[in-house]
Amino acid sequence: MAYDSAATRARLLDAAHAEFAERGLAGARVDRIAAAAQANKQAIYAYFGSKEQLFDAVLADRLSVLADAAPFTPDDLPGYAGALFDALNATPDLLRLTHWRALERGDATPGEIESHLDKAGQVRVSLGLPDEASAVDVVEIVVAVSTAWLGVAPGLKAAGAQDPEKRRAAHRAMVVRAVTAIVDAAR
Amino acid sequence: MAYDSAATRARLLDAAHAEFAERGLAGARVDRIAAAAQANKQAIYAYFGSKEQLFDAVLADRLSVLADAAPFTPDDLPGYAGALFDALNATPDLLRLTHWRALERGDATPGEIESHLDKAGQVRVSLGLPDEASAVDVVEIVVAVSTAWLGVAPGLKAAGAQDPEKRRAAHRAMVVRAVTAIVDAAR
Repeated sequence: MAYDSAATRARLLDAAHAEFAERGLAGARVDRIAAAAQANKQAIYAYFGSKEQLFDAVLADRLSVLADAAPFTPDDLPGYAGALFDALNATPDLLRLTHWRALERGDATPGEIESHLDKAGQVRVSLGLPDEASAVDVVEIVVAVSTAWLGVAPGLKAAGAQDPEKRRAAHRAMVVRAVTAIVDAAR
Repeated sequence: MAYDSAATRARLLDAAHAEFAERGLAGARVDRIAAAAQANKQAIYAYFGSKEQLFDAVLADRLSVLADAAPFTPDDLPGYAGALFDALNATPDLLRLTHWRALERGDATPGEIESHLDKAGQVRVSLGLPDEASAVDVVEIVVAVSTAWLGVAPGLKAAGAQDPEKRRAAHRAMVVRAVTAIVDAAR
Protein backbone atom coordinates (compact mmCIF):
# COMPACT_ATOMS: atom_id res chain seq x y z
CA MET A 1 0.00 0.00 0.00
CA ALA A 2 2.99 2.28 0.55
CA TYR A 3 3.30 3.14 -3.14
CA ASP A 4 0.13 5.24 -3.17
CA SER A 5 -0.03 6.35 0.44
CA ALA A 6 0.78 10.00 -0.31
CA ALA A 7 -1.92 10.10 -2.99
CA THR A 8 -4.47 8.49 -0.67
CA ARG A 9 -3.58 10.92 2.10
CA ALA A 10 -4.02 13.88 -0.28
CA ARG A 11 -7.40 12.56 -1.49
CA LEU A 12 -8.54 12.10 2.11
CA LEU A 13 -7.53 15.67 2.98
CA ASP A 14 -9.48 17.03 -0.01
CA ALA A 15 -12.57 14.99 0.75
CA ALA A 16 -12.37 15.86 4.44
CA HIS A 17 -12.03 19.55 3.63
CA ALA A 18 -15.26 19.51 1.62
CA GLU A 19 -17.12 17.52 4.27
CA PHE A 20 -15.93 19.61 7.24
CA ALA A 21 -16.50 22.95 5.49
CA GLU A 22 -20.07 21.92 4.71
CA ARG A 23 -21.06 20.17 7.94
CA GLY A 24 -18.52 21.00 10.63
CA LEU A 25 -16.89 18.54 12.96
CA ALA A 26 -19.94 17.01 14.66
CA GLY A 27 -21.92 16.77 11.42
CA ALA A 28 -19.11 15.25 9.33
CA ARG A 29 -19.21 11.52 8.66
CA VAL A 30 -15.97 9.59 8.38
CA ASP A 31 -17.52 7.00 6.06
CA ARG A 32 -18.69 9.74 3.69
CA ILE A 33 -15.15 11.17 3.60
CA ALA A 34 -13.69 7.72 2.93
CA ALA A 35 -16.18 7.06 0.13
CA ALA A 36 -15.52 10.44 -1.51
CA ALA A 37 -11.76 9.77 -1.35
CA GLN A 38 -12.18 6.23 -2.69
CA ALA A 39 -10.40 4.96 0.38
CA ASN A 40 -11.52 2.86 3.29
CA LYS A 41 -12.39 4.18 6.69
CA GLN A 42 -9.43 2.43 8.30
CA ALA A 43 -7.06 4.52 6.17
CA ILE A 44 -8.36 7.64 7.93
CA TYR A 45 -7.57 6.23 11.36
CA ALA A 46 -4.22 4.89 10.13
CA TYR A 47 -3.13 8.23 8.61
CA PHE A 48 -4.73 10.74 10.97
CA GLY A 49 -5.74 8.97 14.18
CA SER A 50 -9.30 10.32 14.70
CA LYS A 51 -11.95 12.53 13.14
CA GLU A 52 -10.76 15.42 15.35
CA GLN A 53 -7.16 14.93 14.26
CA LEU A 54 -8.26 14.75 10.64
CA PHE A 55 -10.04 18.08 11.12
CA ASP A 56 -6.87 19.61 12.59
CA ALA A 57 -4.81 18.20 9.71
CA VAL A 58 -7.19 19.70 7.14
CA LEU A 59 -7.08 23.10 8.82
CA ALA A 60 -3.27 23.03 9.16
CA ASP A 61 -2.97 22.04 5.50
CA ARG A 62 -5.23 24.88 4.30
CA LEU A 63 -3.58 27.44 6.57
CA SER A 64 -0.24 26.49 5.10
CA VAL A 65 -1.61 26.97 1.56
CA LEU A 66 -2.97 30.36 2.70
CA ALA A 67 0.41 31.35 4.15
CA ASP A 68 1.98 30.68 0.73
CA ALA A 69 -0.71 32.68 -1.09
CA ALA A 70 -0.46 35.62 1.32
CA PRO A 71 3.06 35.73 2.78
CA PHE A 72 3.29 37.72 5.99
CA THR A 73 5.07 41.05 5.46
CA PRO A 74 5.45 42.84 8.81
CA ASP A 75 6.95 45.92 7.13
CA ASP A 76 3.95 46.18 4.80
CA LEU A 77 0.83 45.24 6.75
CA PRO A 78 -1.55 47.02 4.32
CA GLY A 79 -0.07 44.92 1.49
CA TYR A 80 -0.47 41.79 3.60
CA ALA A 81 -4.10 42.71 4.38
CA GLY A 82 -4.85 43.08 0.66
CA ALA A 83 -3.15 39.77 -0.19
CA LEU A 84 -4.96 38.01 2.66
CA PHE A 85 -8.26 39.49 1.49
CA ASP A 86 -7.62 38.17 -2.03
CA ALA A 87 -6.53 34.73 -0.87
CA LEU A 88 -9.48 34.30 1.49
CA ASN A 89 -12.00 35.47 -1.08
CA ALA A 90 -10.56 32.93 -3.50
CA THR A 91 -11.14 30.16 -0.93
CA PRO A 92 -14.11 31.21 1.23
CA ASP A 93 -14.45 27.68 2.66
CA LEU A 94 -11.36 28.31 4.76
CA LEU A 95 -13.18 30.83 6.93
CA ARG A 96 -15.99 28.31 7.37
CA LEU A 97 -13.40 25.85 8.69
CA THR A 98 -12.04 28.35 11.18
CA HIS A 99 -15.59 29.21 12.31
CA TRP A 100 -16.37 25.54 12.85
CA ARG A 101 -13.09 25.28 14.73
CA ALA A 102 -14.05 28.15 17.03
CA LEU A 103 -17.53 26.71 17.61
CA GLU A 104 -16.67 23.05 17.95
CA ARG A 105 -13.04 22.80 19.04
CA GLY A 106 -12.92 25.80 21.38
CA ASP A 107 -9.21 26.49 21.18
CA ALA A 108 -6.72 26.94 18.37
CA THR A 109 -5.45 23.91 16.51
CA PRO A 110 -1.80 22.91 16.99
CA GLY A 111 0.48 25.38 15.23
CA GLU A 112 -2.04 28.23 15.04
CA ILE A 113 -0.95 29.93 18.26
CA GLU A 114 2.74 29.59 17.35
CA SER A 115 2.02 31.07 13.92
CA HIS A 116 0.20 34.08 15.38
CA LEU A 117 2.86 34.66 18.02
CA ASP A 118 5.53 34.49 15.34
CA LYS A 119 3.71 37.16 13.32
CA ALA A 120 3.25 39.27 16.46
CA GLY A 121 6.97 39.02 17.19
CA GLN A 122 7.80 40.33 13.73
CA VAL A 123 5.26 43.15 14.00
CA ARG A 124 6.60 44.14 17.40
CA VAL A 125 10.07 44.65 15.93
CA SER A 126 8.85 46.28 12.73
CA LEU A 127 6.56 48.82 14.43
CA GLY A 128 8.68 49.20 17.56
CA LEU A 129 5.83 48.22 19.87
CA PRO A 130 6.43 48.17 23.64
CA ASP A 131 5.17 44.64 24.35
CA GLU A 132 4.05 41.36 22.87
CA ALA A 133 0.40 41.92 23.82
CA SER A 134 0.14 45.10 21.70
CA ALA A 135 1.70 43.26 18.78
CA VAL A 136 -0.83 40.42 19.15
CA ASP A 137 -3.61 43.03 19.21
CA VAL A 138 -2.37 44.65 16.00
CA VAL A 139 -2.07 41.29 14.22
CA GLU A 140 -5.54 40.13 15.30
CA ILE A 141 -7.18 43.45 14.38
CA VAL A 142 -5.46 43.48 10.97
CA VAL A 143 -6.65 39.92 10.31
CA ALA A 144 -10.19 40.83 11.46
CA VAL A 145 -10.27 43.82 9.09
CA SER A 146 -9.01 41.63 6.21
CA THR A 147 -11.65 38.96 6.83
CA ALA A 148 -14.63 41.25 7.59
CA TRP A 149 -16.02 41.00 4.05
CA LEU A 150 -16.35 37.21 4.23
CA GLY A 151 -18.63 37.59 7.23
CA VAL A 152 -20.91 40.12 5.55
CA ALA A 153 -24.28 38.58 4.65
CA PRO A 154 -24.86 38.23 0.88
CA GLY A 155 -27.91 40.47 1.04
CA LEU A 156 -25.81 43.26 2.50
CA LYS A 157 -22.97 42.81 0.00
CA ALA A 158 -25.52 43.42 -2.75
CA ALA A 159 -26.56 46.79 -1.29
CA GLY A 160 -25.85 49.61 -3.71
CA ALA A 161 -26.41 47.21 -6.64
CA GLN A 162 -22.88 47.56 -7.99
CA ASP A 163 -21.18 44.91 -10.09
CA PRO A 164 -19.96 42.29 -7.52
CA GLU A 165 -16.33 42.45 -8.73
CA LYS A 166 -16.21 46.23 -8.46
CA ARG A 167 -17.96 46.09 -5.12
CA ARG A 168 -15.35 43.68 -3.78
CA ALA A 169 -12.50 45.80 -5.15
CA ALA A 170 -13.96 48.87 -3.44
CA HIS A 171 -14.14 47.02 -0.13
CA ARG A 172 -10.58 45.78 -0.62
CA ALA A 173 -9.42 49.38 -1.06
CA MET A 174 -11.15 50.32 2.21
CA VAL A 175 -9.42 47.40 3.97
CA VAL A 176 -5.99 48.58 2.80
CA ARG A 177 -6.83 52.14 3.82
CA ALA A 178 -8.02 51.01 7.25
CA VAL A 179 -4.91 48.91 7.90
CA THR A 180 -2.65 51.76 6.81
CA ALA A 181 -4.38 53.97 9.37
CA ILE A 182 -4.20 51.33 12.09
CA VAL A 183 -0.46 50.82 11.56
CA ASP A 184 0.19 54.56 11.75
CA ALA A 185 -1.88 54.80 14.94
CA ALA A 186 -0.22 51.78 16.60
CA ARG A 187 3.36 52.89 16.02
CA MET B 1 -53.23 29.19 28.26
CA ALA B 2 -53.25 32.84 27.28
CA TYR B 3 -52.52 34.02 30.82
CA ASP B 4 -48.92 32.75 30.77
CA SER B 5 -48.16 32.85 27.05
CA ALA B 6 -45.65 35.71 27.37
CA ALA B 7 -43.81 33.88 30.14
CA THR B 8 -43.77 30.63 28.18
CA ARG B 9 -42.51 32.42 25.09
CA ALA B 10 -39.71 34.06 27.13
CA ARG B 11 -38.71 30.70 28.68
CA LEU B 12 -38.66 29.11 25.24
CA LEU B 13 -36.41 31.89 23.90
CA ASP B 14 -33.99 31.46 26.83
CA ALA B 15 -33.86 27.68 26.48
CA ALA B 16 -33.50 27.93 22.71
CA HIS B 17 -30.68 30.44 23.08
CA ALA B 18 -28.68 28.05 25.26
CA GLU B 19 -29.36 25.09 22.97
CA PHE B 20 -28.55 26.92 19.71
CA ALA B 21 -25.42 28.62 21.10
CA GLU B 22 -24.09 25.23 22.19
CA ARG B 23 -25.13 23.05 19.25
CA GLY B 24 -26.10 25.27 16.34
CA LEU B 25 -29.19 24.88 14.20
CA ALA B 26 -28.72 21.34 12.88
CA GLY B 27 -27.55 19.98 16.23
CA ALA B 28 -30.29 21.61 18.32
CA ARG B 29 -33.21 19.42 19.43
CA VAL B 30 -36.66 20.95 19.73
CA ASP B 31 -37.70 18.46 22.41
CA ARG B 32 -34.65 19.38 24.53
CA ILE B 33 -35.59 23.07 24.24
CA ALA B 34 -39.20 22.32 25.22
CA ALA B 35 -38.09 20.26 28.22
CA ALA B 36 -35.65 22.93 29.43
CA ALA B 37 -38.41 25.56 29.12
CA GLN B 38 -40.95 23.31 30.91
CA ALA B 39 -43.20 23.66 27.89
CA ASN B 40 -44.41 21.21 25.32
CA LYS B 41 -43.05 20.89 21.82
CA GLN B 42 -46.29 22.07 20.26
CA ALA B 43 -45.87 25.43 21.99
CA ILE B 44 -42.69 25.99 19.97
CA TYR B 45 -44.50 25.44 16.70
CA ALA B 46 -47.46 27.51 17.87
CA TYR B 47 -45.33 30.48 18.93
CA PHE B 48 -42.51 30.37 16.40
CA GLY B 49 -43.53 28.17 13.46
CA SER B 50 -40.40 26.03 13.00
CA LYS B 51 -36.95 25.36 14.44
CA GLU B 52 -35.46 27.75 11.84
CA GLN B 53 -37.90 30.49 12.77
CA LEU B 54 -37.18 29.90 16.44
CA PHE B 55 -33.46 30.36 15.69
CA ASP B 56 -34.20 33.62 13.87
CA ALA B 57 -36.37 34.79 16.77
CA VAL B 58 -33.59 34.04 19.29
CA LEU B 59 -31.03 35.90 17.22
CA ALA B 60 -33.35 38.89 16.67
CA ASP B 61 -34.10 38.97 20.39
CA ARG B 62 -30.41 38.95 21.38
CA LEU B 63 -29.45 41.51 18.75
CA SER B 64 -32.10 43.81 20.12
CA VAL B 65 -30.68 43.39 23.65
CA LEU B 66 -27.23 44.12 22.21
CA ALA B 67 -28.51 47.26 20.48
CA ASP B 68 -29.77 48.52 23.83
CA ALA B 69 -26.45 47.73 25.56
CA ALA B 70 -24.37 49.36 22.82
CA PRO B 71 -26.44 52.10 21.16
CA PHE B 72 -25.16 53.08 17.74
CA THR B 73 -23.50 56.50 17.78
CA PRO B 74 -22.47 57.48 14.24
CA ASP B 75 -20.77 60.65 15.47
CA ASP B 76 -18.66 58.66 17.92
CA LEU B 77 -17.69 55.37 16.28
CA PRO B 78 -14.72 54.77 18.62
CA GLY B 79 -17.11 55.05 21.58
CA TYR B 80 -19.52 52.68 19.87
CA ALA B 81 -16.70 50.20 19.20
CA GLY B 82 -15.74 50.23 22.88
CA ALA B 83 -19.36 49.77 24.01
CA LEU B 84 -19.88 46.96 21.48
CA PHE B 85 -16.67 45.31 22.67
CA ASP B 86 -17.90 45.46 26.28
CA ALA B 87 -21.40 44.21 25.46
CA LEU B 88 -20.14 41.31 23.34
CA ASN B 89 -17.55 40.26 25.89
CA ALA B 90 -20.31 40.23 28.50
CA THR B 91 -22.36 37.84 26.31
CA PRO B 92 -19.90 35.81 24.22
CA ASP B 93 -22.63 33.33 23.23
CA LEU B 94 -24.06 35.94 20.90
CA LEU B 95 -21.08 35.68 18.56
CA ARG B 96 -21.51 31.91 18.58
CA LEU B 97 -25.09 32.42 17.41
CA THR B 98 -24.01 34.68 14.56
CA HIS B 99 -21.30 32.20 13.56
CA TRP B 100 -23.83 29.38 13.48
CA ARG B 101 -26.08 31.64 11.46
CA ALA B 102 -23.32 32.29 8.90
CA LEU B 103 -22.47 28.59 8.68
CA GLU B 104 -25.95 27.11 8.73
CA ARG B 105 -28.36 29.76 7.46
CA GLY B 106 -26.15 31.34 4.80
CA ASP B 107 -27.74 34.75 4.70
CA ALA B 108 -28.68 37.34 7.29
CA THR B 109 -31.78 36.82 9.40
CA PRO B 110 -34.76 39.13 8.84
CA GLY B 111 -34.01 42.61 10.13
CA GLU B 112 -30.21 42.24 10.16
CA ILE B 113 -29.66 43.75 6.71
CA GLU B 114 -32.05 46.62 7.42
CA SER B 115 -30.24 47.28 10.70
CA HIS B 116 -26.81 47.40 9.02
CA LEU B 117 -28.07 49.60 6.18
CA ASP B 118 -29.63 51.95 8.70
CA LYS B 119 -26.28 52.25 10.50
CA ALA B 120 -24.50 52.76 7.18
CA GLY B 121 -26.93 55.52 6.25
CA GLN B 122 -26.17 57.33 9.50
CA VAL B 123 -22.41 56.91 9.06
CA ARG B 124 -22.59 58.18 5.51
CA VAL B 125 -24.15 61.44 6.69
CA SER B 126 -21.94 61.77 9.76
CA LEU B 127 -18.64 61.20 7.92
CA GLY B 128 -19.75 62.79 4.66
CA LEU B 129 -19.00 59.64 2.63
CA PRO B 130 -19.61 59.67 -1.13
CA ASP B 131 -21.75 56.54 -1.37
CA GLU B 132 -23.66 53.88 0.55
CA ALA B 133 -21.10 51.17 -0.26
CA SER B 134 -18.26 53.04 1.49
CA ALA B 135 -20.48 53.56 4.51
CA VAL B 136 -21.32 49.83 4.62
CA ASP B 137 -17.58 49.11 4.42
CA VAL B 138 -16.81 51.40 7.36
CA VAL B 139 -19.59 49.89 9.48
CA GLU B 140 -18.56 46.30 8.73
CA ILE B 141 -14.87 47.01 9.37
CA VAL B 142 -15.64 48.79 12.66
CA VAL B 143 -17.78 45.85 13.78
CA ALA B 144 -15.04 43.40 12.75
CA VAL B 145 -12.44 45.33 14.77
CA SER B 146 -14.77 45.40 17.78
CA THR B 147 -15.41 41.65 17.63
CA ALA B 148 -11.85 40.49 16.80
CA TRP B 149 -11.03 39.63 20.41
CA LEU B 150 -13.92 37.16 20.68
CA GLY B 151 -12.44 35.20 17.80
CA VAL B 152 -8.95 35.01 19.30
CA ALA B 153 -8.16 31.51 20.57
CA PRO B 154 -7.90 31.26 24.38
CA GLY B 155 -4.29 30.08 24.13
CA LEU B 156 -3.35 33.25 22.25
CA LYS B 157 -5.25 35.54 24.62
CA ALA B 158 -3.11 34.16 27.41
CA ALA B 159 0.14 35.11 25.65
CA GLY B 160 2.13 37.58 27.69
CA ALA B 161 0.71 36.07 30.88
CA GLN B 162 -1.01 39.27 32.01
CA ASP B 163 -4.01 39.34 34.29
CA PRO B 164 -7.00 38.53 31.98
CA GLU B 165 -8.94 41.68 32.95
CA LYS B 166 -5.96 43.93 32.24
CA ARG B 167 -5.25 42.06 29.04
CA ARG B 168 -8.80 42.62 27.83
CA ALA B 169 -8.69 46.30 28.79
CA ALA B 170 -5.47 46.70 26.82
CA HIS B 171 -7.04 45.10 23.77
CA ARG B 172 -10.11 47.32 24.17
CA ALA B 173 -7.87 50.40 24.14
CA MET B 174 -6.27 49.17 20.89
CA VAL B 175 -9.75 48.66 19.38
CA VAL B 176 -10.75 52.25 20.22
CA ARG B 177 -7.44 53.54 18.83
CA ALA B 178 -7.86 51.53 15.62
CA VAL B 179 -11.42 52.74 15.06
CA THR B 180 -10.38 56.33 15.69
CA ALA B 181 -7.73 55.94 12.99
CA ILE B 182 -10.15 54.24 10.57
CA VAL B 183 -12.71 57.02 10.95
CA ASP B 184 -10.08 59.68 10.30
CA ALA B 185 -8.86 57.80 7.21
CA ALA B 186 -12.36 57.22 5.82
CA ARG B 187 -13.52 60.81 6.08
